[in-house]
Amino acid sequence: MNIGIVGFGGVGKAFLKLVYDKKNELENEGIYIQINYIIGRTGGVYNNHGIELQRFIDFLSNEKDITKYCDGGKAEDINFELMLNNKDIDIMVEMTPTNKETGEPGITHIRRCLENNINVVTSNKGPILIAYKKLYNLAKAHNVQLGIGCTTGGALPAINGGLMDLAGADITSIEGVLNGTTNFILKEMEDTGCDYADALKEAQRLGIAETNPSLDVEGFDTASKLLILTNVLMNTEKTMKDISIEGITNVTPDDIKRANSLNKKYKLIGKTEIVNNELEMTVKLQLLDPSNSLYGVEGKNKAVRYISDTLGELTIIGGASGVTPAAASILRDIININRGYKFVK
Amino acid sequence: MNIGIVGFGGVGKAFLKLVYDKKNELENEGIYIQINYIIGRTGGVYNNHGIELQRFIDFLSNEKDITKYCDGGKAEDINFELMLNNKDIDIMVEMTPTNKETGEPGITHIRRCLENNINVVTSNKGPILIAYKKLYNLAKAHNVQLGIGCTTGGALPAINGGLMDLAGADITSIEGVLNGTTNFILKEMEDTGCDYADALKEAQRLGIAETNPSLDVEGFDTASKLLILTNVLMNTEKTMKDISIEGITNVTPDDIKRANSLNKKYKLIGKTEIVNNELEMTVKLQLLDPSNSLYGVEGKNKAVRYISDTLGELTIIGGASGVTPAAASILRDIININRGYKFVK
Repeated sequence: MNIGIVGFGGVGKAFLKLVYDKKNELENEGIYIQINYIIGRTGGVYNNHGIELQRFIDFLSNEKDITKYCDGGKAEDINFELMLNNKDIDIMVEMTPTNKETGEPGITHIRRCLENNINVVTSNKGPILIAYKKLYNLAKAHNVQLGIGCTTGGALPAINGGLMDLAGADITSIEGVLNGTTNFILKEMEDTGCDYADALKEAQRLGIAETNPSLDVEGFDTASKLLILTNVLMNTEKTMKDISIEGITNVTPDDIKRANSLNKKYKLIGKTEIVNNELEMTVKLQLLDPSNSLYGVEGKNKAVRYISDTLGELTIIGGASGVTPAAASILRDIININRGYKFVK
Repeated sequence: MNIGIVGFGGVGKAFLKLVYDKKNELENEGIYIQINYIIGRTGGVYNNHGIELQRFIDFLSNEKDITKYCDGGKAEDINFELMLNNKDIDIMVEMTPTNKETGEPGITHIRRCLENNINVVTSNKGPILIAYKKLYNLAKAHNVQLGIGCTTGGALPAINGGLMDLAGADITSIEGVLNGTTNFILKEMEDTGCDYADALKEAQRLGIAETNPSLDVEGFDTASKLLILTNVLMNTEKTMKDISIEGITNVTPDDIKRANSLNKKYKLIGKTEIVNNELEMTVKLQLLDPSNSLYGVEGKNKAVRYISDTLGELTIIGGASGVTPAAASILRDIININRGYKFVK
């Protein structure tokens, strides 16, 4: 199984390390992974017998610029077009930065690989948010696979849960605690009694919240994950405009205190349900009691709850944060494709 | 995809109804299910063009004895041997009653089908408890699949979770609330303040506990599910003797009251973990606080929590009770096999 990596950052580096560390285990299962391409913004690395991972990982310990790595060819000549022309990969792993407005350059990378009968596994939310159905149909037409498990919660197997664990059942409701940053802020307010602004500062200090936290705290990250889950698992083509979105920026220490005194907790919940035969999609703060399976989802954890017709309720809690779990979720899709699973049916 | 059902009771009947109800949906995905055999204790029904489900389901509404159904052949001539000889099925669904001592007749049915290159999906715990590794290796040697999702929690995707959702990660700990009856009894004691004996009586009155409840309340059912999960997901060959098992029969209303006053709850937990480089397996009552993801698992619900090296923690809560969810978990394995997934690698 030959792989080309397009877009190379922290998760890519963790992915290489994982493939290296798990080599024996994977080979015991009959999975032989060879990384032929690592393509960054200004050039890449290529070896049609597989890049020597130990050597490349050692190189990365002192150097960020992959174009300085010498493996035969000139770094600046190694690009996406060359990879398509050479036709020597089975799977493209797309990890370029997410653009939620245009989906580019991810959409183009994914589209052109699928058109060239190359399987795709991606961590890139943008293309899946904007063009999932088109890309799915393209994959289907070319009889290749499209793995998107990393795009909604990373290690949290939200997509897997809906596709594989509820195979044969109709999902009638999706509900989730899908954003770690807002979870952290709410927990911080609960634990220390501080106000929203101070909890946000603490999250920023710890590197959990970004300098511009609006995507997280205003609910857009939750909404985008809910949108992907809904479109993938309920066979629809909703957009962000179809979601009523509220964030957590107005929550006060008094709200939290009152919830606590009732033995309840606030969580930012994304929810899709059927109301009067139509899908209704919301992101908003909700007060949960301890019997709710999402009540205990704390800190950086995430969770999703499905209700289905024949397999009942299914709650999945998990989704360790960080580059290794994200990389492991990419590897999970690759392994499941290797085990024959058809994400694209 | 032609199916032979061996062992026919409530789950079998629900399975037929499900295949009938989901026909269009399955066909949209390219899955054409035809039931060729339904084999009971004293005879069976056979149609090599597929038993007419609507007609057979109507027949069952007035009659339990399937040998009275007329579909050409003589019911008493239609048996397991005939099915093997005819070689006209792709999957055998084994649903004979569980025998946890011998595993029979399930083991023989499964073994002979695998030897004849027929895929197997089973709800029968006995064979998997006693002979999983042998049956797995047999399936591997004959390049066929063995689906066992129904054997540990029915609708709860415990096996799927470990195999598919944690693909590529090493599971280092398994912990679960795996028995609905003990869950119900503990909840009943908590809600009403009654003692163990009265809670058990109520469970029996509602048909949740059996007349002889010892398998459930003494922890053996939890232990047997833990054993299957451990052997399947941690690649070992433990037996029931390797598990330290305590049930819930000694719990008092005072214990429950004290737990409540601490805002905690008792659950019967089956757990496999690595202690001093060895697997340690226990079933015992444990006191959980609300931050534990198993805390909210109430009533007939079940749950399992895995800890893994690269994908972190994963908790799965669900597992609706009853014949339809159990049948749906059989159908889930059939669909995943149809989608190409290799449970046997």
